[in-house]
Amino acid sequence: MSNSIKLAILGLGTVGTGVINLINDNLNELKRRSGRDIIITEVGTRRQRDDIDTNIMQNSDLMAIAASDNVDIVIEVIGGTTLAKDVIMQAIKNGKHVVTANKALLAEHGNEIFAFAEENNVHVAYEAAVAGGIPIIKVMREGLAANKIEWLAGIINGTGNFIMTEMRDKGRPFADVLSEAQALGYAEADPTFDVEGIDAAHKLALLASIAFGIPLQFDKVYCEGITGITLQDVNYAEELGYRIKHLGFAVRRDSENDGDAGVELRVHPTLIPQDALLANVNGVKNAVLVNSHPLGQTLYCGDGAGAGATASAVMADVMDLVRVLGSKDRDDQSNSNQSNHGHHVPHLAFIPDQLSDTPILRADQMVTGYYLRVHAYDSPGVLADITRILSDAGINIDAILQKPAHKVGQVPVIILTLPVVESQMNLAIEKIEKLETITDKVVRIRLDELA
Amino acid sequence: MSNSIKLAILGLGTVGTGVINLINDNLNELKRRSGRDIIITEVGTRRQRDDIDTNIMQNSDLMAIAASDNVDIVIEVIGGTTLAKDVIMQAIKNGKHVVTANKALLAEHGNEIFAFAEENNVHVAYEAAVAGGIPIIKVMREGLAANKIEWLAGIINGTGNFIMTEMRDKGRPFADVLSEAQALGYAEADPTFDVEGIDAAHKLALLASIAFGIPLQFDKVYCEGITGITLQDVNYAEELGYRIKHLGFAVRRDSENDGDAGVELRVHPTLIPQDALLANVNGVKNAVLVNSHPLGQTLYCGDGAGAGATASAVMADVMDLVRVLGSKDRDDQSNSNQSNHGHHVPHLAFIPDQLSDTPILRADQMVTGYYLRVHAYDSPGVLADITRILSDAGINIDAILQKPAHKVGQVPVIILTLPVVESQMNLAIEKIEKLETITDKVVRIRLDELA
Repeated sequence: MSNSIKLAILGLGTVGTGVINLINDNLNELKRRSGRDIIITEVGTRRQRDDIDTNIMQNSDLMAIAASDNVDIVIEVIGGTTLAKDVIMQAIKNGKHVVTANKALLAEHGNEIFAFAEENNVHVAYEAAVAGGIPIIKVMREGLAANKIEWLAGIINGTGNFIMTEMRDKGRPFADVLSEAQALGYAEADPTFDVEGIDAAHKLALLASIAFGIPLQFDKVYCEGITGITLQDVNYAEELGYRIKHLGFAVRRDSENDGDAGVELRVHPTLIPQDALLANVNGVKNAVLVNSHPLGQTLYCGDGAGAGATASAVMADVMDLVRVLGSKDRDDQSNSNQSNHGHHVPHLAFIPDQLSDTPILRADQMVTGYYLRVHAYDSPGVLADITRILSDAGINIDAILQKPAHKVGQVPVIILTLPVVESQMNLAIEKIEKLETITDKVVRIRLDELA
Repeated sequence: MSNSIKLAILGLGTVGTGVINLINDNLNELKRRSGRDIIITEVGTRRQRDDIDTNIMQNSDLMAIAASDNVDIVIEVIGGTTLAKDVIMQAIKNGKHVVTANKALLAEHGNEIFAFAEENNVHVAYEAAVAGGIPIIKVMREGLAANKIEWLAGIINGTGNFIMTEMRDKGRPFADVLSEAQALGYAEADPTFDVEGIDAAHKLALLASIAFGIPLQFDKVYCEGITGITLQDVNYAEELGYRIKHLGFAVRRDSENDGDAGVELRVHPTLIPQDALLANVNGVKNAVLVNSHPLGQTLYCGDGAGAGATASAVMADVMDLVRVLGSKDRDDQSNSNQSNHGHHVPHLAFIPDQLSDTPILRADQMVTGYYLRVHAYDSPGVLADITRILSDAGINIDAILQKPAHKVGQVPVIILTLPVVESQMNLAIEKIEKLETITDKVVRIRLDELA
């Protein structure tokens, strides 16, 4: 292997261009840290670009680039789950290491892709797929490698966090802020992936796998977006000392806990204490809070998107590969049971044959606190009825707020509960909604003390 | 090499015991992640302990353990800079990898130790030496490996942060909180290293090296503690929207900046904006804020001390070594110019022959904002005199607060300035103190907007 490392960049959108800029800007730092020349030899682009260095070969045939002898590492930043998958499989088959920012692809087809990479002695790196420039994959796979991870909670969709921040700070309704996010380029024209929590669920599936050593199971992530969050609830939450954030949670439930043993994978709006650092991560920032034994809580925060942040993560992966590529040809002498490609950190943090089949819990098995907003005719017995139903269901009330009527004869009652299994809460709410004094559906939002 | 990894732990204090507990608690996780059995074969302890597994050999002769054939990795947690150095050099000479939590030793003798490790094809890992369980060494050496780091600011002494937090939250004076910190076991009987900033300076020297690719230069760190911080200044700062934290700063000053080119290494109390996340990291927590190009700002926060946090970092290093030990015997075939011990991340993040001799700036060359508290007789012209002196020195005022007199005839004037070279500020203060209307020494605390 020569002393230079040859990169191909597939896709010259925001991220691809960001990677080219990073390499130009930081050439000296990269060389000083790696001892290698890192050069882009080929780029995959649909139309010929005249702003690209003439030494770089431009090619619209991505499958050809992924098989090219002139490439050591293939960087996939085209997105999507079809062509992107084909070129990644092609690169793997041809013995190239792959770096990708593609969370949707990995969350949905990662098990297959990583297995194929193991077979072919190459590594598929994906730091940029979760939380942008925050090196959360490295932190969890390596920095916390000696810990038992108990749970994590993350702001892992910048658009959603921008919307929740603006709603609270400026008292603007959801639809209004969403339009602005679209105008600013934070949200796509079709904002479904962001506001319905699908993007966050992709990332959560990846985080949960490397936290607990379980296969990727995106299809089992419980997913709730922020489209139903009203200013009314944002304000009540604040009044009670909480803030509503859209969070992804991965939680290990051991059998000694209440409820069933297994893993909770869920994405939903959540009331968290106002004074928690996570509650003060604002705008398009991302942050992941990890609780592990024996370390305790650690928090990682930074830009979750944008050309610079994503390029930083992509190139951190490249640097990782560059730093191990020297050992690539020597692996037949290895007598370890690790994957053999010189990069000894397993794709999903745990040795492939050590992934566990811990069950993923259904939504009705999940245990969380709740914020309830109940609208009732202002009759004397209503609060007694509600609290009796909750008490009969074994649900402990942590706080109650009864506000003056905003419609004639109607008052919202806000109730915060301690953690309870969702199935119990479902039954209690069903009963509450059957009360004659109750005028509307009960609004519920999950609550977590992050303790 | 057999499939099991044999550890020696030198020192069975809080951290050594924490490492043993972690291995017992997380044995399954460690095995699932590494594919290896990680076993403690020897421990170094002055007196025989009967609470240690009888399979583990106890030995008071640390130099013998460091040379033992029954050990792959030596974990040094005895502390100090004399015996600790001897046993580490002995381990290196005998081809053992070393893991240490010893910031004082590395800050003062790291250049020599790392060079000796390179010579002997072993790695000296030190994640636990800075910011406890936060994997900040890994983040900066690897996660941010593609970035040009511009500056970092860290709460890197938990005791100091506990004291500053209590002073502000509870309005308690410094001496009072220090006594409590000592009673709680946070601060040593001799708290000099904590409250004078020496411990933070050790850690800053390490962080700065891996940020900028410069040799360790602890002796050049400008170091100011928190013993002079009064409640009066804490409260004025809050009133102006700032919070005083004890921070370590490493700042790259390029020639295009005002002032001289070079690196600022400084530890001192600092006013930072109240709403910065860093200002809301409380108690014994540590946090490091890194500003790099093109990533921008990222923050890393968690427990900076304690058995669990330190053991987590020590064992993260062990896991790192375990994951690369398989390639240890194959390095003679490497044709790279990297160090040859299978661990391809350089000790100080940059290839040893690529460390730069960027000058470390003297205190009077450093550029920061300032908080000034000036006590003056309440005569009409005093404010005009002060502001004229500052203006003549080219110092821009950002805010002024003039409080009612607290002694008869005396009023404190609080002035916040924009960044200025310290030498200019020194001259201005000298002139201000010569004014007849000024009754006391000018109190100054540095200020940083973290922008």
